[in-house]
Amino acid sequence: MTYCLGLLTQSGLVFTSDSRTNAGVDSVATYAKLFDFSQEGDRVLVIMTSGNLSSSQSVMSLLKQDLEDAGAENLHNLPSMYAVARYLGSKNRTIAEWDRPSLESSNISFSSRMIVGGQIKGQAHELYLIYTEGNCIQATPETPFLQLGETKYGKPILDRAFRYESSLEDAARCALISMDATMRSNLGVGPPIEIVAYTADSLRISQRCRLGEQDEFLINTRRQWEQELQRLVALMPPVPWDGCGC
Amino acid sequence: MTYCLGLLTQSGLVFTSDSRTNAGVDSVATYAKLFDFSQEGDRVLVIMTSGNLSSSQSVMSLLKQDLEDAGAENLHNLPSMYAVARYLGSKNRTIAEWDRPSLESSNISFSSRMIVGGQIKGQAHELYLIYTEGNCIQATPETPFLQLGETKYGKPILDRAFRYESSLEDAARCALISMDATMRSNLGVGPPIEIVAYTADSLRISQRCRLGEQDEFLINTRRQWEQELQRLVALMPPVPWDGCGC
Repeated sequence: MTYCLGLLTQSGLVFTSDSRTNAGVDSVATYAKLFDFSQEGDRVLVIMTSGNLSSSQSVMSLLKQDLEDAGAENLHNLPSMYAVARYLGSKNRTIAEWDRPSLESSNISFSSRMIVGGQIKGQAHELYLIYTEGNCIQATPETPFLQLGETKYGKPILDRAFRYESSLEDAARCALISMDATMRSNLGVGPPIEIVAYTADSLRISQRCRLGEQDEFLINTRRQWEQELQRLVALMPPVPWDGCGC
Repeated sequence: MTYCLGLLTQSGLVFTSDSRTNAGVDSVATYAKLFDFSQEGDRVLVIMTSGNLSSSQSVMSLLKQDLEDAGAENLHNLPSMYAVARYLGSKNRTIAEWDRPSLESSNISFSSRMIVGGQIKGQAHELYLIYTEGNCIQATPETPFLQLGETKYGKPILDRAFRYESSLEDAARCALISMDATMRSNLGVGPPIEIVAYTADSLRISQRCRLGEQDEFLINTRRQWEQELQRLVALMPPVPWDGCGC
Protein backbone atom coordinates (compact mmCIF):
# COMPACT_ATOMS: atom_id res chain seq x y z
CA MET A 1 0.00 0.00 0.00
CA THR A 2 0.96 3.64 -0.34
CA TYR A 3 -0.04 6.99 1.03
CA CYS A 4 0.96 10.14 -0.83
CA LEU A 5 -0.55 13.56 -0.25
CA GLY A 6 -0.16 16.89 -2.04
CA LEU A 7 -1.42 20.13 -0.48
CA LEU A 8 -2.03 23.34 -2.39
CA THR A 9 -1.93 26.59 -0.43
CA GLN A 10 -1.93 30.18 -1.56
CA SER A 11 1.70 30.45 -0.47
CA GLY A 12 3.02 27.19 -1.88
CA LEU A 13 2.86 23.41 -1.92
CA VAL A 14 3.49 20.56 0.52
CA PHE A 15 4.14 16.95 -0.47
CA THR A 16 4.41 13.88 1.70
CA SER A 17 4.85 10.21 0.95
CA ASP A 18 5.53 7.01 2.82
CA SER A 19 8.16 4.54 1.57
CA ARG A 20 6.67 1.10 2.07
CA THR A 21 5.78 -1.37 -0.66
CA ASN A 22 4.29 -4.75 -0.03
CA ALA A 23 3.04 -7.77 -1.88
CA GLY A 24 1.32 -9.46 1.03
CA VAL A 25 2.40 -8.98 4.65
CA ASP A 26 5.39 -11.27 4.14
CA SER A 27 6.90 -9.24 1.35
CA VAL A 28 7.57 -5.73 2.60
CA ALA A 29 10.23 -3.40 1.21
CA THR A 30 11.29 0.24 1.23
CA TYR A 31 11.23 2.34 -1.95
CA ALA A 32 11.15 6.08 -2.42
CA LYS A 33 7.88 7.34 -3.88
CA LEU A 34 8.74 11.04 -4.02
CA PHE A 35 10.97 12.33 -6.80
CA ASP A 36 12.36 15.79 -7.36
CA PHE A 37 12.92 16.88 -10.97
CA SER A 38 13.40 20.58 -10.22
CA GLN A 39 15.81 22.89 -12.02
CA GLU A 40 16.56 25.71 -9.64
CA GLY A 41 15.55 29.10 -11.00
CA ASP A 42 13.54 27.70 -13.90
CA ARG A 43 11.09 25.16 -12.49
CA VAL A 44 10.16 23.09 -9.48
CA LEU A 45 8.69 19.65 -10.18
CA VAL A 46 7.90 17.05 -7.51
CA ILE A 47 6.34 13.75 -8.53
CA MET A 48 4.87 11.11 -6.21
CA THR A 49 3.86 7.65 -7.42
CA SER A 50 1.50 4.83 -6.45
CA GLY A 51 0.32 1.56 -7.94
CA ASN A 52 2.33 -1.43 -9.16
CA LEU A 53 5.97 -0.76 -8.26
CA SER A 54 7.04 -2.06 -11.66
CA SER A 55 4.75 0.44 -13.40
CA SER A 56 5.90 3.47 -11.44
CA GLN A 57 9.55 2.49 -11.81
CA SER A 58 9.00 2.11 -15.57
CA VAL A 59 7.47 5.59 -15.74
CA MET A 60 10.51 6.99 -13.91
CA SER A 61 12.84 5.23 -16.36
CA LEU A 62 11.01 6.78 -19.31
CA LEU A 63 11.16 10.24 -17.72
CA LYS A 64 14.93 9.93 -17.24
CA GLN A 65 15.40 8.55 -20.74
CA ASP A 66 13.63 11.59 -22.21
CA LEU A 67 15.72 13.95 -20.05
CA GLU A 68 18.89 12.48 -21.55
CA ASP A 69 17.61 13.13 -25.04
CA ALA A 70 17.89 16.89 -25.58
CA GLY A 71 15.64 16.69 -28.64
CA ALA A 72 12.81 14.94 -26.82
CA GLU A 73 9.84 16.48 -25.06
CA ASN A 74 10.84 16.16 -21.41
CA LEU A 75 10.24 17.45 -17.87
CA HIS A 76 12.74 20.26 -18.35
CA ASN A 77 11.30 21.74 -21.53
CA LEU A 78 7.53 21.25 -21.23
CA PRO A 79 5.83 24.67 -21.31
CA SER A 80 3.33 24.41 -18.40
CA MET A 81 2.33 22.33 -15.37
CA TYR A 82 -0.70 21.14 -17.34
CA ALA A 83 1.59 19.97 -20.14
CA VAL A 84 3.70 18.13 -17.53
CA ALA A 85 0.57 16.40 -16.16
CA ARG A 86 -0.53 15.32 -19.66
CA TYR A 87 3.00 14.14 -20.46
CA LEU A 88 3.03 11.96 -17.30
CA GLY A 89 -0.35 10.59 -18.34
CA SER A 90 1.07 9.66 -21.74
CA LYS A 91 3.78 7.65 -19.96
CA ASN A 92 1.09 5.75 -18.04
CA ARG A 93 -0.55 4.95 -21.37
CA THR A 94 2.71 3.72 -22.86
CA ILE A 95 3.40 1.38 -19.93
CA ALA A 96 -0.21 0.21 -19.95
CA GLU A 97 0.13 -0.72 -23.61
CA TRP A 98 3.25 -2.73 -22.81
CA ASP A 99 2.22 -4.44 -19.57
CA ARG A 100 -1.53 -4.39 -19.00
CA PRO A 101 -2.49 -7.40 -21.17
CA SER A 102 0.12 -9.63 -19.56
CA LEU A 103 -0.69 -8.45 -16.01
CA GLU A 104 -4.42 -8.94 -16.55
CA SER A 105 -3.87 -12.44 -17.90
CA SER A 106 -2.47 -13.19 -14.40
CA ASN A 107 -5.41 -11.36 -12.76
CA ILE A 108 -3.20 -8.47 -11.63
CA SER A 109 -4.75 -5.10 -12.29
CA PHE A 110 -2.55 -2.46 -13.85
CA SER A 111 -2.34 0.62 -11.67
CA SER A 112 -0.19 3.75 -11.85
CA ARG A 113 -1.38 7.00 -10.31
CA MET A 114 0.79 10.03 -9.72
CA ILE A 115 0.67 13.43 -8.09
CA VAL A 116 2.76 16.18 -9.63
CA GLY A 117 3.14 19.65 -8.25
CA GLY A 118 5.41 22.58 -8.78
CA GLN A 119 5.83 25.78 -10.68
CA ILE A 120 7.35 26.93 -13.96
CA LYS A 121 8.97 30.36 -14.00
CA GLY A 122 6.44 33.13 -14.65
CA GLN A 123 3.43 30.85 -14.07
CA ALA A 124 1.35 29.86 -11.04
CA HIS A 125 2.21 26.96 -8.71
CA GLU A 126 -0.12 24.03 -9.45
CA LEU A 127 -0.91 20.52 -8.26
CA TYR A 128 -2.29 17.62 -10.35
CA LEU A 129 -3.32 14.01 -9.91
CA ILE A 130 -2.75 11.74 -12.91
CA TYR A 131 -4.95 8.67 -13.18
CA THR A 132 -3.84 5.24 -14.35
CA GLU A 133 -5.74 5.92 -17.58
CA GLY A 134 -3.64 9.02 -18.29
CA ASN A 135 -6.21 11.74 -17.65
CA CYS A 136 -5.69 14.22 -14.83
CA ILE A 137 -7.40 16.54 -12.34
CA GLN A 138 -6.09 19.72 -10.72
CA ALA A 139 -6.32 20.85 -7.09
CA THR A 140 -8.23 24.12 -6.58
CA PRO A 141 -8.74 26.54 -3.67
CA GLU A 142 -12.07 24.79 -2.91
CA THR A 143 -10.51 21.29 -2.98
CA PRO A 144 -6.90 22.03 -2.14
CA PHE A 145 -5.49 18.55 -1.57
CA LEU A 146 -4.99 15.37 -3.61
CA GLN A 147 -4.24 11.89 -2.30
CA LEU A 148 -2.94 8.56 -3.60
CA GLY A 149 -3.33 5.05 -2.19
CA GLU A 150 -4.77 4.55 1.30
CA THR A 151 -6.65 7.84 1.35
CA LYS A 152 -9.38 7.47 3.98
CA TYR A 153 -7.67 7.35 7.38
CA GLY A 154 -5.79 10.58 6.74
CA LYS A 155 -8.67 12.56 5.26
CA PRO A 156 -10.67 13.69 8.33
CA ILE A 157 -7.83 15.84 9.71
CA LEU A 158 -7.47 17.52 6.30
CA ASP A 159 -11.23 18.10 6.00
CA ARG A 160 -11.19 19.71 9.46
CA ALA A 161 -7.94 21.59 9.72
CA PHE A 162 -6.47 22.28 6.29
CA ARG A 163 -7.47 25.16 4.03
CA TYR A 164 -6.04 26.80 0.91
CA GLU A 165 -5.42 29.76 3.20
CA SER A 166 -3.38 27.71 5.73
CA SER A 167 0.26 28.71 6.22
CA LEU A 168 2.87 26.43 4.69
CA GLU A 169 4.00 25.41 8.20
CA ASP A 170 0.45 24.46 9.21
CA ALA A 171 0.01 22.58 5.93
CA ALA A 172 3.18 20.60 6.72
CA ARG A 173 1.87 19.82 10.22
CA CYS A 174 -1.46 18.65 8.75
CA ALA A 175 0.41 16.50 6.23
CA LEU A 176 2.44 14.84 8.97
CA ILE A 177 -0.63 14.16 11.14
CA SER A 178 -2.55 12.81 8.13
CA MET A 179 0.38 10.51 7.29
CA ASP A 180 0.74 9.36 10.88
CA ALA A 181 -2.98 8.53 11.17
CA THR A 182 -2.66 6.42 8.02
CA MET A 183 0.46 4.59 9.24
CA ARG A 184 -1.24 3.85 12.54
CA SER A 185 -4.25 2.25 10.87
CA ASN A 186 -2.65 0.48 7.87
CA LEU A 187 0.55 -1.51 8.32
CA GLY A 188 1.09 -1.35 4.56
CA VAL A 189 1.93 2.36 4.91
CA GLY A 190 5.23 2.96 6.68
CA PRO A 191 8.33 5.09 7.22
CA PRO A 192 10.58 6.64 6.25
CA ILE A 193 8.22 9.53 5.60
CA GLU A 194 9.33 12.22 3.21
CA ILE A 195 7.96 15.76 3.50
CA VAL A 196 8.76 18.54 1.08
CA ALA A 197 7.53 22.13 1.23
CA TYR A 198 7.81 24.59 -1.61
CA THR A 199 7.38 28.36 -1.20
CA ALA A 200 5.67 29.78 -4.29
CA ASP A 201 7.83 31.89 -6.62
CA SER A 202 11.10 30.77 -4.98
CA LEU A 203 11.73 28.28 -7.81
CA ARG A 204 13.77 26.04 -5.52
CA ILE A 205 12.93 23.47 -2.89
CA SER A 206 14.56 24.58 0.33
CA GLN A 207 12.54 22.59 2.85
CA ARG A 208 12.75 18.85 2.97
CA CYS A 209 12.66 16.30 5.75
CA ARG A 210 12.86 12.52 6.03
CA LEU A 211 11.60 10.82 9.18
CA GLY A 212 12.52 7.22 10.01
CA GLU A 213 10.55 4.89 12.26
CA GLN A 214 12.64 5.67 15.34
CA ASP A 215 12.91 9.39 14.63
CA GLU A 216 12.53 11.22 17.92
CA PHE A 217 10.49 14.05 16.41
CA LEU A 218 8.05 11.58 14.86
CA ILE A 219 7.66 9.62 18.10
CA ASN A 220 7.16 12.79 20.17
CA THR A 221 4.71 14.28 17.68
CA ARG A 222 2.66 11.08 17.72
CA ARG A 223 2.61 10.99 21.52
CA GLN A 224 1.75 14.67 21.84
CA TRP A 225 -1.04 14.44 19.24
CA GLU A 226 -2.53 11.41 20.95
CA GLN A 227 -2.46 13.02 24.38
CA GLU A 228 -3.93 16.27 23.09
CA LEU A 229 -6.74 14.41 21.29
CA GLN A 230 -7.60 12.51 24.46
CA ARG A 231 -7.67 15.78 26.36
CA LEU A 232 -9.85 17.38 23.68
CA VAL A 233 -12.36 14.53 23.73
CA ALA A 234 -12.74 14.86 27.50
CA LEU A 235 -13.37 18.62 27.10
CA MET A 236 -16.18 18.20 24.55
CA PRO A 237 -19.71 18.67 25.88
CA PRO A 238 -21.32 15.40 26.98
CA VAL A 239 -23.82 13.69 24.67
CA PRO A 240 -27.27 15.10 25.53
CA TRP A 241 -29.10 11.93 26.51
CA ASP A 242 -32.83 12.02 26.08
CA GLY A 243 -33.20 10.03 29.26
CA CYS A 244 -36.08 8.35 27.47
CA GLY A 245 -35.79 5.11 29.43
CA CYS A 246 -36.15 3.15 26.21
CA MET B 1 -23.46 3.13 2.78
CA THR B 2 -23.59 2.68 6.53
CA TYR B 3 -21.51 3.40 9.58
CA CYS B 4 -22.18 1.54 12.81
CA LEU B 5 -19.83 1.38 15.76
CA GLY B 6 -19.86 -0.59 18.99
CA LEU B 7 -17.53 0.29 21.87
CA LEU B 8 -16.69 -2.03 24.75
CA THR B 9 -15.51 -0.45 27.99
CA GLN B 10 -14.96 -1.91 31.42
CA SER B 11 -18.01 -0.03 32.64
CA GLY B 12 -20.39 -0.73 29.76
CA LEU B 13 -21.15 -0.42 26.06
CA VAL B 14 -21.77 2.38 23.57
CA PHE B 15 -23.47 1.94 20.21
CA THR B 16 -23.89 4.42 17.40
CA SER B 17 -25.37 4.17 13.93
CA ASP B 18 -26.26 6.46 11.07
CA SER B 19 -29.62 6.13 9.31
CA ARG B 20 -28.91 6.61 5.61
CA THR B 21 -29.35 4.03 2.90
CA ASN B 22 -28.58 4.62 -0.72
CA ALA B 23 -28.60 2.85 -4.02
CA GLY B 24 -26.62 5.44 -5.94
CA VAL B 25 -26.61 9.13 -5.06
CA ASP B 26 -30.07 9.58 -6.57
CA SER B 27 -31.75 7.03 -4.33
CA VAL B 28 -31.24 8.05 -0.72
CA ALA B 29 -33.53 7.09 2.13
CA THR B 30 -33.67 6.99 5.93
CA TYR B 31 -33.93 3.69 7.80
CA ALA B 32 -33.09 2.83 11.39
CA LYS B 33 -30.10 0.51 11.71
CA LEU B 34 -30.08 0.20 15.51
CA PHE B 35 -32.58 -2.09 17.20
CA ASP B 36 -33.21 -2.66 20.88
CA PHE B 37 -34.40 -6.13 21.93
CA SER B 38 -33.79 -5.67 25.66
CA GLN B 39 -35.97 -7.08 28.44
CA GLU B 40 -35.41 -4.89 31.46
CA GLY B 41 -33.99 -6.78 34.43
CA ASP B 42 -33.16 -9.91 32.41
CA ARG B 43 -31.11 -8.88 29.40
CA VAL B 44 -29.97 -5.97 27.29
CA LEU B 45 -29.58 -6.65 23.56
CA VAL B 46 -28.77 -3.99 20.98
CA ILE B 47 -28.33 -5.00 17.34
CA MET B 48 -26.97 -2.84 14.50
CA THR B 49 -27.15 -3.89 10.87
CA SER B 50 -25.36 -3.23 7.58
CA GLY B 51 -25.41 -4.62 4.07
CA ASN B 52 -28.28 -5.00 1.64
CA LEU B 53 -31.32 -3.35 3.22
CA SER B 54 -33.49 -6.26 2.10
CA SER B 55 -31.20 -8.73 3.87
CA SER B 56 -31.06 -6.87 7.18
CA GLN B 57 -34.81 -6.27 7.12
CA SER B 58 -35.34 -9.99 6.48
CA VAL B 59 -33.13 -10.87 9.45
CA MET B 60 -35.21 -8.52 11.64
CA SER B 61 -38.41 -10.17 10.41
CA LEU B 62 -37.09 -13.61 11.34
CA LEU B 63 -36.02 -12.39 14.78
CA LYS B 64 -39.49 -10.99 15.47
CA GLN B 65 -41.16 -14.13 14.13
CA ASP B 66 -39.16 -16.29 16.55
CA LEU B 67 -40.01 -13.94 19.43
CA GLU B 68 -43.71 -14.46 18.75
CA ASP B 69 -43.26 -18.25 18.94
CA ALA B 70 -42.75 -19.07 22.62
CA GLY B 71 -41.46 -22.54 21.74
CA ALA B 72 -38.75 -21.26 19.41
CA GLU B 73 -35.16 -20.43 20.21
CA ASN B 74 -35.25 -16.62 20.29
CA LEU B 75 -33.48 -13.48 21.52
CA HIS B 76 -35.29 -13.64 24.86
CA ASN B 77 -34.40 -17.21 25.80
CA LEU B 78 -30.91 -17.75 24.39
CA PRO B 79 -28.54 -18.58 27.27
CA SER B 80 -25.50 -16.33 26.48
CA MET B 81 -24.31 -13.44 24.35
CA TYR B 82 -22.23 -15.91 22.34
CA ALA B 83 -25.37 -17.97 21.67
CA VAL B 84 -27.11 -14.75 20.54
CA ALA B 85 -24.24 -14.01 18.15
CA ARG B 86 -24.33 -17.53 16.67
CA TYR B 87 -28.13 -17.34 16.39
CA LEU B 88 -27.88 -14.06 14.43
CA GLY B 89 -25.29 -15.73 12.20
CA SER B 90 -27.70 -18.58 11.53
CA LYS B 91 -30.27 -16.02 10.33
CA ASN B 92 -27.69 -14.61 7.91
CA ARG B 93 -27.18 -18.12 6.56
CA THR B 94 -30.91 -18.68 6.15
CA ILE B 95 -31.36 -15.44 4.19
CA ALA B 96 -28.25 -16.21 2.15
CA GLU B 97 -29.71 -19.56 1.18
CA TRP B 98 -32.92 -17.85 0.06
CA ASP B 99 -31.53 -14.78 -1.72
CA ARG B 100 -27.85 -15.11 -2.58
CA PRO B 101 -28.19 -17.12 -5.84
CA SER B 102 -30.76 -14.73 -7.26
CA LEU B 103 -28.82 -11.62 -6.20
CA GLU B 104 -25.59 -12.96 -7.63
CA SER B 105 -27.26 -13.79 -10.92
CA SER B 106 -27.86 -10.01 -11.16
CA ASN B 107 -24.26 -9.28 -10.07
CA ILE B 108 -25.38 -7.98 -6.67
CA SER B 109 -23.29 -9.32 -3.82
CA PHE B 110 -25.15 -10.59 -0.79
CA SER B 111 -24.07 -8.75 2.34
CA SER B 112 -25.40 -8.73 5.89
CA ARG B 113 -23.14 -7.85 8.80
CA MET B 114 -24.31 -7.08 12.30
CA ILE B 115 -22.98 -5.88 15.61
CA VAL B 116 -24.70 -7.15 18.74
CA GLY B 117 -23.88 -6.10 22.26
CA GLY B 118 -25.45 -6.37 25.64
CA GLN B 119 -25.60 -8.44 28.76
CA ILE B 120 -27.58 -11.36 30.12
CA LYS B 121 -28.29 -11.38 33.86
CA GLY B 122 -25.44 -12.88 35.87
CA GLN B 123 -23.01 -12.79 32.90
CA ALA B 124 -20.51 -10.25 31.55
CA HIS B 125 -21.41 -7.51 29.06
CA GLU B 126 -20.11 -8.47 25.61
CA LEU B 127 -19.88 -7.14 22.07
CA TYR B 128 -19.79 -9.18 18.83
CA LEU B 129 -19.56 -8.64 15.10
CA ILE B 130 -21.40 -11.17 12.93
CA TYR B 131 -20.11 -11.63 9.39
CA THR B 132 -22.25 -12.17 6.31
CA GLU B 133 -21.12 -15.81 6.37
CA GLY B 134 -22.57 -16.30 9.87
CA ASN B 135 -19.34 -16.58 11.87
CA CYS B 136 -18.51 -13.97 14.50
CA ILE B 137 -15.75 -12.22 16.44
CA GLN B 138 -15.84 -10.67 19.90
CA ALA B 139 -14.43 -7.33 21.09
CA THR B 140 -11.75 -7.62 23.77
CA PRO B 141 -9.95 -5.17 26.10
CA GLU B 142 -7.05 -5.05 23.59
CA THR B 143 -9.34 -4.41 20.60
CA PRO B 144 -12.35 -2.82 22.25
CA PHE B 145 -14.36 -1.57 19.28
CA LEU B 146 -16.09 -3.09 16.25
CA GLN B 147 -17.28 -1.28 13.12
CA LEU B 148 -19.61 -1.90 10.19
CA GLY B 149 -19.71 -0.29 6.75
CA GLU B 150 -17.59 2.80 6.05
CA THR B 151 -15.03 2.07 8.76
CA LYS B 152 -11.90 4.00 7.82
CA TYR B 153 -12.66 7.71 8.26
CA GLY B 154 -13.83 7.19 11.83
CA LYS B 155 -11.03 4.88 12.97
CA PRO B 156 -8.11 7.27 13.68
CA ILE B 157 -9.92 9.05 16.52
CA LEU B 158 -10.73 5.67 18.10
CA ASP B 159 -7.14 4.43 17.71
CA ARG B 160 -5.92 7.62 19.40
CA ALA B 161 -8.46 8.45 22.04
CA PHE B 162 -10.55 5.41 22.96
CA ARG B 163 -9.50 2.70 25.41
CA TYR B 164 -11.25 -0.14 27.20
CA GLU B 165 -10.58 1.92 30.34
CA SER B 166 -12.33 5.04 28.96
CA SER B 167 -15.37 6.28 30.86
CA LEU B 168 -18.75 5.66 29.27
CA GLU B 169 -19.15 9.42 28.70
CA ASP B 170 -15.78 9.65 26.93
CA ALA B 171 -16.66 6.57 24.87
CA ALA B 172 -19.90 8.29 23.79
CA ARG B 173 -17.95 11.45 22.84
CA CYS B 174 -15.48 9.35 20.80
CA ALA B 175 -18.38 7.57 19.10
CA LEU B 176 -19.98 10.87 18.13
CA ILE B 177 -16.71 12.30 16.78
CA SER B 178 -15.98 9.10 14.86
CA MET B 179 -19.48 9.20 13.35
CA ASP B 180 -19.19 12.87 12.47
CA ALA B 181 -15.82 12.35 10.74
CA THR B 182 -17.43 9.61 8.66
CA MET B 183 -20.47 11.71 7.72
CA ARG B 184 -18.20 14.57 6.72
CA SER B 185 -16.17 12.39 4.35
CA ASN B 186 -18.86 10.07 2.91
CA LEU B 187 -22.22 11.46 1.82
CA GLY B 188 -23.64 7.94 1.96
CA VAL B 189 -23.45 8.11 5.76
CA GLY B 190 -25.96 10.54 7.25
CA PRO B 191 -28.23 11.58 10.10
CA PRO B 192 -30.23 11.02 12.14
CA ILE B 193 -27.50 9.52 14.30
CA GLU B 194 -28.51 7.20 17.08
CA ILE B 195 -26.34 6.79 20.17
CA VAL B 196 -27.04 4.37 22.99
CA ALA B 197 -25.01 3.85 26.14
CA TYR B 198 -25.41 0.92 28.48
CA THR B 199 -24.02 0.83 32.03
CA ALA B 200 -22.88 -2.70 32.84
CA ASP B 201 -25.01 -4.65 35.31
CA SER B 202 -27.90 -2.18 35.14
CA LEU B 203 -29.80 -4.52 32.78
CA ARG B 204 -31.65 -1.59 31.23
CA ILE B 205 -30.81 1.02 28.64
CA SER B 206 -31.27 4.38 30.24
CA GLN B 207 -29.19 6.55 27.92
CA ARG B 208 -30.24 7.10 24.36
CA CYS B 209 -30.04 10.02 21.99
CA ARG B 210 -31.06 10.74 18.42
CA LEU B 211 -29.47 13.64 16.56
CA GLY B 212 -30.97 15.04 13.35
CA GLU B 213 -29.10 16.98 10.69
CA GLN B 214 -30.11 20.36 12.11
CA ASP B 215 -29.66 19.36 15.72
CA GLU B 216 -28.04 22.26 17.54
CA PHE B 217 -25.86 20.04 19.69
CA LEU B 218 -24.53 18.21 16.63
CA ILE B 219 -23.81 21.45 14.77
CA ASN B 220 -22.07 22.99 17.80
CA THR B 221 -20.05 19.86 18.50
CA ARG B 222 -18.87 19.73 14.90
CA ARG B 223 -17.87 23.42 14.96
CA GLN B 224 -16.12 23.14 18.30
CA TRP B 225 -14.22 19.99 17.29
CA GLU B 226 -13.11 21.60 14.04
CA GLN B 227 -11.92 24.79 15.76
CA GLU B 228 -10.10 22.86 18.47
CA LEU B 229 -8.35 20.65 15.89
CA GLN B 230 -7.21 23.71 13.95
CA ARG B 231 -5.88 25.21 17.18
CA LEU B 232 -4.13 21.93 18.07
CA VAL B 233 -2.44 21.68 14.67
CA ALA B 234 -1.05 25.20 15.06
CA LEU B 235 0.32 24.29 18.51
CA MET B 236 2.20 21.21 17.29
CA PRO B 237 5.98 21.60 16.88
CA PRO B 238 6.98 22.62 13.36
CA VAL B 239 8.33 19.98 10.98
CA PRO B 240 12.15 19.86 11.50
CA TRP B 241 13.36 20.73 8.01
CA ASP B 242 16.79 19.45 7.12
CA GLY B 243 17.44 22.62 5.19
CA CYS B 244 19.26 20.38 2.78
CA GLY B 245 18.69 22.62 -0.21
CA CYS B 246 17.83 19.60 -2.32
